[in-house]
Amino acid sequence: MSKKYNVCVLGATGMVGKEMMRVLEERNFPINKFLPLASERTAGTKVTFQGKEYTVELAEPKSFEGIEIGLFSAGAKPSAALAPEAVKRGCVVIDNTSHFRMDPNVPLIVPEVNGHAIKNHKGIIANPNCSTAQMVLALKPIYDAVGIERIVVSTYQSVSGWGKEAVGELLNQSRALLADPNAKVEVKCIFKRIAFNVVPQIDQFTDNGYTKEEMKMVNETQKIFEDDTIKVSATTVRVPVIIGHSESVNIKTKKKISASEARRLMGSFADVKVMDDPGKGIYPTPIDCVGKNETLVGRVREDISQENGLDMWIVSDNLRRGAALNAVLIAERMIADGLI
Amino acid sequence: MSKKYNVCVLGATGMVGKEMMRVLEERNFPINKFLPLASERTAGTKVTFQGKEYTVELAEPKSFEGIEIGLFSAGAKPSAALAPEAVKRGCVVIDNTSHFRMDPNVPLIVPEVNGHAIKNHKGIIANPNCSTAQMVLALKPIYDAVGIERIVVSTYQSVSGWGKEAVGELLNQSRALLADPNAKVEVKCIFKRIAFNVVPQIDQFTDNGYTKEEMKMVNETQKIFEDDTIKVSATTVRVPVIIGHSESVNIKTKKKISASEARRLMGSFADVKVMDDPGKGIYPTPIDCVGKNETLVGRVREDISQENGLDMWIVSDNLRRGAALNAVLIAERMIADGLI
Repeated sequence: MSKKYNVCVLGATGMVGKEMMRVLEERNFPINKFLPLASERTAGTKVTFQGKEYTVELAEPKSFEGIEIGLFSAGAKPSAALAPEAVKRGCVVIDNTSHFRMDPNVPLIVPEVNGHAIKNHKGIIANPNCSTAQMVLALKPIYDAVGIERIVVSTYQSVSGWGKEAVGELLNQSRALLADPNAKVEVKCIFKRIAFNVVPQIDQFTDNGYTKEEMKMVNETQKIFEDDTIKVSATTVRVPVIIGHSESVNIKTKKKISASEARRLMGSFADVKVMDDPGKGIYPTPIDCVGKNETLVGRVREDISQENGLDMWIVSDNLRRGAALNAVLIAERMIADGLI
Repeated sequence: MSKKYNVCVLGATGMVGKEMMRVLEERNFPINKFLPLASERTAGTKVTFQGKEYTVELAEPKSFEGIEIGLFSAGAKPSAALAPEAVKRGCVVIDNTSHFRMDPNVPLIVPEVNGHAIKNHKGIIANPNCSTAQMVLALKPIYDAVGIERIVVSTYQSVSGWGKEAVGELLNQSRALLADPNAKVEVKCIFKRIAFNVVPQIDQFTDNGYTKEEMKMVNETQKIFEDDTIKVSATTVRVPVIIGHSESVNIKTKKKISASEARRLMGSFADVKVMDDPGKGIYPTPIDCVGKNETLVGRVREDISQENGLDMWIVSDNLRRGAALNAVLIAERMIADGLI
């Protein structure tokens, strides 16, 4: 009988934490002991996993004694404080926050793209930002075939990327505005009103005028492709969608590739599904990706504005592909490679 | 006393037609006789203009007898059929549909950008597509200062660009989904469900994989700038916003320009307002532009992915700037230039 593992989910009451638990269940991950953890705010809540009810425990250093795999998604601060404590106690941490991503000692992994780099870990492995994960996944087969010089990406990101409070904010604002178009609505999570609006800011601004979210797409793409020469310019925008991030992506490849060859390569790549028959109305939208493991790609076309250019539209479930599934795939790969 | 004109609005019951009437009122346009026209579907409806109630008349060739200025916004078919009839009767037609835009005999005008070209008209002057109008307006001062080689644009377009039925569709779908997240909603105007979703299709697809809306942004930009060398790649996307189109625009200029110089140039250009102080949370969103004549620009930054690159975010009231105001400004310019 193959080994089973003691697994904890830190942030078990959040949207990504819950999705991690669903993915672990679905994939029948080999679990011996399961431990849901959270910060003081939600510790004590009940969650159900594999048909059994658990009380979410308060995460503290000693929580990780005897735990072999920790899936962390409770925010950058809890990760910063607790990941080293978990590692000290022999737990491998797969961290979904931005805290360790650019640390040179921490591999930043999309398993299908750079799973080979997991082996360099020193206890912590980082999950990329959700918008980066789906983009590098779709672009990887093109990168391998013809190289990529430059990416210009504009995103259409759902509110669940912020968290469940932002979902409530969108729904509450929408209800209020449908009742009264001039209603004053409460804005707490997203920077501006998001219902019936779009907001071109995700995370804080940096000195160069890009937001941190936009710079994540630059730096993480280079780190995952292990290629500092890829140029990226990103504009990240919040849209009134609940789950599912979309991306309008324009790339310049090093060598010419046709749209049909790009479609063929992406369609045969793991966890990418090409939905691209526009004459029949076939292209992905966010509501098509919810709950799906696949990253959906459509609107693939040869760029009329530059040599060796392609445009495409990439859609993926940000809670799943960009977070929960990616973390569980990292753990599965570690098991398969005998790293754990 | 200066001359007053006999003016008709064709499509007087539509969203753009109503906005045209509001703009004519606001600007105190010199009107002698006012005639609201529509197709069979809505002729007979009442509209109010300058405090007076009018019955919308059925548009037919003889409607234009004695009319000097016709503002057309009833769709491509009525324009195709009736504009030549109006011209035959001495009426100058300012047409908001796509029908005549690329006709070499028809000037395509954003008055602040290429108003000088109105004089070449042969009875018909075309208004550009709303998403083109706001983009060329914001980019014109940069084009004049340093030249523009290439534009990559992704749009976030509101449903009012489709028309009032699409606004009803968004609101109805939103209500239904707030009551029941699994509700089956009716999709008639926009190609897919638009509530809590985004749809990367506006207008029909062409053979090269771009939509007609996307190709309008290419061809109209070149025509308005009178420069076939400008390269444009567009991805046009419908978002669940009622009024206001947003655009994520990445450009390559011929010579280097700093973000601050670009801001200064745009800020001093007619009908462009720079709202760009991200540290203070100042950047435009669609709800900021509603009812405003100005095109709003924010998030101006030097592109880290190419030499001589700029990124920016352009927001404008599509009914007003992209349509009604533009048409009335054309008429005003014709009067000022003694062309009418």
